[in-house]
Amino acid sequence: MTRTISERELAELAAQIPPLDEAAARAVQIRIDNKTKPRGSLGRLEELVCRLAAMQATERPVAGPRAIVVMAADHGVAASPDGPVSAYPPEVTAQMVANFARGGAAINALARAADARVEVVDMGVRVPVEAPGVVSVRVAPGTRDLAREPAMSRDEALAAIAAGVAIARRLTDEGVRLLGIGEMGIGNTTAASALTCALAGAAAEEATGRGTGVDDATYARKVGVVRAALARHRAVIDAGDALGIVAALSGLELAGLAGVVIGAAHARVPVVIDGYISSAAALAAARLAPRTADYLLPSHRSVEVGHRLVLSALRLRPLFDLGLRLGEGTGAALAMPMIAAAVRILDEMATFEAAGVTDSGR
Amino acid sequence: MTRTISERELAELAAQIPPLDEAAARAVQIRIDNKTKPRGSLGRLEELVCRLAAMQATERPVAGPRAIVVMAADHGVAASPDGPVSAYPPEVTAQMVANFARGGAAINALARAADARVEVVDMGVRVPVEAPGVVSVRVAPGTRDLAREPAMSRDEALAAIAAGVAIARRLTDEGVRLLGIGEMGIGNTTAASALTCALAGAAAEEATGRGTGVDDATYARKVGVVRAALARHRAVIDAGDALGIVAALSGLELAGLAGVVIGAAHARVPVVIDGYISSAAALAAARLAPRTADYLLPSHRSVEVGHRLVLSALRLRPLFDLGLRLGEGTGAALAMPMIAAAVRILDEMATFEAAGVTDSGR
Repeated sequence: MTRTISERELAELAAQIPPLDEAAARAVQIRIDNKTKPRGSLGRLEELVCRLAAMQATERPVAGPRAIVVMAADHGVAASPDGPVSAYPPEVTAQMVANFARGGAAINALARAADARVEVVDMGVRVPVEAPGVVSVRVAPGTRDLAREPAMSRDEALAAIAAGVAIARRLTDEGVRLLGIGEMGIGNTTAASALTCALAGAAAEEATGRGTGVDDATYARKVGVVRAALARHRAVIDAGDALGIVAALSGLELAGLAGVVIGAAHARVPVVIDGYISSAAALAAARLAPRTADYLLPSHRSVEVGHRLVLSALRLRPLFDLGLRLGEGTGAALAMPMIAAAVRILDEMATFEAAGVTDSGR
Repeated sequence: MTRTISERELAELAAQIPPLDEAAARAVQIRIDNKTKPRGSLGRLEELVCRLAAMQATERPVAGPRAIVVMAADHGVAASPDGPVSAYPPEVTAQMVANFARGGAAINALARAADARVEVVDMGVRVPVEAPGVVSVRVAPGTRDLAREPAMSRDEALAAIAAGVAIARRLTDEGVRLLGIGEMGIGNTTAASALTCALAGAAAEEATGRGTGVDDATYARKVGVVRAALARHRAVIDAGDALGIVAALSGLELAGLAGVVIGAAHARVPVVIDGYISSAAALAAARLAPRTADYLLPSHRSVEVGHRLVLSALRLRPLFDLGLRLGEGTGAALAMPMIAAAVRILDEMATFEAAGVTDSGR
């Protein structure tokens, strides 16, 4: 396990995140405007290339090499004596991590299609997963039940964040230039709902959805759990204490992913968010280190009702809505080829002058 | 140029388009339901794979080899003495065909990203484009002004449709298993608007947008032109004479693309539509040969206001809306990696049983 960080070191890291290079974005837009097509006619593809330029501080932005960090952890709330909050039992977290390691999950298939490597991280699965290729961080063997006590201590949250920062730093050192984030953890839509309510100021029922597909009774229990968690941790919420909120109301993989976002932003590497849970982790990163928000790229809008709240709090408009509700980074993987295609506009299209095409100036 | 077809031969071709294989789609859905993810959690990706299975009549659908047919032609209406209907002069059609041939246009960049070949077809550019790689069909050196007379004769429309069918047949014979369609033709949003009004029963102002970006005066003229065209050709519209409508109110590239769709459907090859113009051509195909509609896959929703009408008439829900308004097949190229990724779900994901993951049955 990597060295943890103190709250002061986290604040220093946050302060060191570089501002966007808007001059690079403007220069890229001018170059795009000279390409053989009506001005603005490639819509959000043009916007994506300009955002990449601003993030990477270059007039030659790139969309790769690509990697998707998938963090997994267990949640105390999933083993509550009051009953389950998920359609799946907690042992599925470890089973799915083994599946990721063997390359048989949806994220493996979609990451291959996106030419992205998958970095699987055990942030705290209850029973350690012994599988080659799984990065073992294991801050704790899962969280505690957030409806009854803080899911993590502040130190555990800091350790998870530090591990995420270190993983992002290693990947960017290895040359990764576009990062995606994804997660796995039975019970983590409950944690994401609690975190979203605390960070975006929503009520439990506004931010709580059906997750992997729970029945009505389980759904009602899930809303009750989120409500209880918000009541129990009212003090940190009212204090606007971002680290306290992450510790009390999220999970090890959520805190870890917040660290990944902070580490990537520090290295000027754009982060493609996925669905509800990874987006909630990105929102946590944006509260811990506000400039990280500039380095986020949207992918899809999930079926999970709370995802809209998170996207709106992050001021991100999704690129597509395919009715996905799986997580793992699957939406991020689907967005990557689109982002890579956008970069080709800049790299490969001819200008009006070079192609001998009459420019209407419009 | 290929042999043209008679109206009777076209009707026979339409009757021979095979029905969808819904049993294959159901078998594929069952296989997907055994993959390690909650049932239905990959939303429209699952739907895409099932549609491919039904179209290709196989439980092992494929998303390639891929090709995008880009058809170009000029429009008499773009050279009307009453003034332009586009922000660009008519000579840009030929200039852009040369740009396609050299690989410098947006569609070339995006098709490379999608691993799709681009088949450029001169269906009737005013001045022939002498460039290697351009398939020359040239039914006529552009259409006539649809506001004053039929854009094409019925025989010209049949010749354009026959050429499209032949191109689709050649590509599918060469092994192409996923086709995209795109177009180029200064003035062709005006033709697409007229065609949409005639086929979907809309009023001129409901189906007419800003195209490549016209000013208010040009926009007003464009609406007037569409209205005049609808009035002049009221007889074929009221008769529901699909071929007469295509001839009077569309363009050589639109009729050609309708033929491509018919030819592809005949060979059970799915067709990914693009924006307003190519979708209007697909709607024409669906009126000429109703079963072709089963072989269409959506890509994006364009900025062009009439595109919604066409998608709704085709009962297709777009996969994304990126504010595109370029045409050329760019949206189809962006959708292809998404469709290919969907196929990987079926091909590459492990089952619950093989992966040792507990199945909740939900």
